[in-house]
Amino acid sequence: MSAVAAVRGVGSSAYGWFPRQRIEAMAAEAVLEALRDAQVAPDELDAIMVGSVFGPPGVGARVQRGLGLRGIPTLTIENACASGTSAFHEAVEAVRFGRYRCVLVLGVEQMSTLFDGPIVPEGTDPEGAAGLALPALYALAAQRYAHEFGVSAEQLAAVAVKNKTHGVDNPRAQLRRAPTVSEVLASRMIAEPLTLLQCCPTGDGAAAVVVGRPRGGRDVVVESSVLVSGELWDHRSVEVWGYAAIARAAERAYADAGRSPRDMDVLEVHDAFTIGEITAVEALGLARHGEGAALAPAGHTARGGPQPVNPSGGLLSRGHPLGATGPAQLHEIVTQLRGEAGPRQAPGARVGLVETMGGGAAGVDANSCVVAILAR
Amino acid sequence: MSAVAAVRGVGSSAYGWFPRQRIEAMAAEAVLEALRDAQVAPDELDAIMVGSVFGPPGVGARVQRGLGLRGIPTLTIENACASGTSAFHEAVEAVRFGRYRCVLVLGVEQMSTLFDGPIVPEGTDPEGAAGLALPALYALAAQRYAHEFGVSAEQLAAVAVKNKTHGVDNPRAQLRRAPTVSEVLASRMIAEPLTLLQCCPTGDGAAAVVVGRPRGGRDVVVESSVLVSGELWDHRSVEVWGYAAIARAAERAYADAGRSPRDMDVLEVHDAFTIGEITAVEALGLARHGEGAALAPAGHTARGGPQPVNPSGGLLSRGHPLGATGPAQLHEIVTQLRGEAGPRQAPGARVGLVETMGGGAAGVDANSCVVAILAR
Repeated sequence: MSAVAAVRGVGSSAYGWFPRQRIEAMAAEAVLEALRDAQVAPDELDAIMVGSVFGPPGVGARVQRGLGLRGIPTLTIENACASGTSAFHEAVEAVRFGRYRCVLVLGVEQMSTLFDGPIVPEGTDPEGAAGLALPALYALAAQRYAHEFGVSAEQLAAVAVKNKTHGVDNPRAQLRRAPTVSEVLASRMIAEPLTLLQCCPTGDGAAAVVVGRPRGGRDVVVESSVLVSGELWDHRSVEVWGYAAIARAAERAYADAGRSPRDMDVLEVHDAFTIGEITAVEALGLARHGEGAALAPAGHTARGGPQPVNPSGGLLSRGHPLGATGPAQLHEIVTQLRGEAGPRQAPGARVGLVETMGGGAAGVDANSCVVAILAR
Repeated sequence: MSAVAAVRGVGSSAYGWFPRQRIEAMAAEAVLEALRDAQVAPDELDAIMVGSVFGPPGVGARVQRGLGLRGIPTLTIENACASGTSAFHEAVEAVRFGRYRCVLVLGVEQMSTLFDGPIVPEGTDPEGAAGLALPALYALAAQRYAHEFGVSAEQLAAVAVKNKTHGVDNPRAQLRRAPTVSEVLASRMIAEPLTLLQCCPTGDGAAAVVVGRPRGGRDVVVESSVLVSGELWDHRSVEVWGYAAIARAAERAYADAGRSPRDMDVLEVHDAFTIGEITAVEALGLARHGEGAALAPAGHTARGGPQPVNPSGGLLSRGHPLGATGPAQLHEIVTQLRGEAGPRQAPGARVGLVETMGGGAAGVDANSCVVAILAR
């Protein structure tokens, strides 16, 4: 690798349920903000990488047209819930290897026009045939975790309370109300032990990241970015679903960056469900295996704690517009590392981490995960 | 760029309408044949790049699992009809820049379970709102071409007769019957002047290409690969829709390869409709602007002619399983350059070209095009 990649700028739309808005309008809002933030003109872009699961086809081409560009490569990358972070990963690698100098990454999704319920995996998948929608998959992980290590209902709920409390200060989040532990536990049961307030909402939105070679100023350096796909889950192991993929990606990301878990000042992780954050903080090495459930109740991962996790409010507050989620996480970490997060700021954050986990229709045992480490 | 990329092996499924088959089964057929052909073991793969428009999500992850691999990066790339060739382009660039040593490219689509009619672009697009499905878009191009340069019904039909005659010798093609010019013209009118037999069928199928550094043997070197997106169509110009994108990609591909149009011994181009091949052969420089319609009637682009175009039968015979189309074209050119095309063989072919054009929902005036030049 000949060059270092940096995030030059970030932008996003609001996140929510906007069935009457055009997907291009959401994309444009994020893209124009990111280009302004990066002080990059459209004609400095070498390529556009779009992360999206459900398209529609051609959004990237229409964004290019809207920017007045012609002829630059524009692709859409699909990698389940990790689509947006995968597009970012491809952009980072292209800059590192000297293929491109400056790439626009756009994560965008409009689920409100496609679904009116949870996404059930394809019927031909083993989990689809068994009726295992994603809440059920995560619930099974929570049950297994509880069996192996013990986790109380209150510990699970503490993750939701923490992230939803953080989310109150995120003006673009889909949900901005901080419940109590009792309220979380009293909300409707979705899949035992996960109640409604422990499940992220799906929705619409866009986030954009400009990746290029660092030029100083407010640039945030990408110390490492690792994409792992198809990591198998061994159902005989004590690890729950997803742990292995995150752990493998994290191990490489720390090695590439020359960092250890304790160096992480602020993290955005894939808390699609409360158990997801507990799995992630363990796989990322913030806690020992089986001890991650204690972090949120102890305040370790709260905004004022030593290692804030999901200061944006996470997916539990922001919502989960699939392709937009990764760039939205990057948006938060970059804003944090610049010290520009206002009431959400983690004081003195210098090194941050983003983790996005993609699974779903890929099968119970075939996941994708991107872990990226950024620093100022 | 530090390295040269080569196609090490190719494989494909049959092409047709297989609503009861699993998409993974088609993918596996293509992938296993390509790996065998390349004499590459699964564990030599550094990454998997899937080209597909309509997914479903996670096909690549399931292919990885099926190969017994774990943890290698696997992405799906969407770029309308050029999705498969775009995945190939990304693989070629990754090898050229030293990022990966060996990449599996898989193009796969199953349209039989999704559509029972032509794909109408999104209603929010200008062309969608105007009812301009793809046959109508190509018909407008044909009308404009006829106005500017003159093209007879028989010249258009000659493209269909040529390609469908070629297709008779392609055992995996969806349609294998050679009509006469009269039959082509007498078939049902779809969009004036394009009759049914001038329109490719959509369908299902998979094709795979193993890209790596050349190791001799039956490897075919990729001399150049260019992806152009968002090339604008100027409706005031005499060029028809699509011409500018192909011409720009071709110009760069010839320059990168140090080749000229006359060096091309055999070509697979995007003949989704007969006018598409005429536009392509002009934009690729096989004929002067406005003179491309004469090539098929003159036998120039027939299998026995000096520059055979679509010896596989093209999309008009093979069908158009969107994401699979590009790798299917590459499969044919590689087979031709190896001299292994049997009854379809273009004698003495040493240099070949693949052109795939993606448009559709991307808008009337925002297209993607990949042009790749391969040689032995």
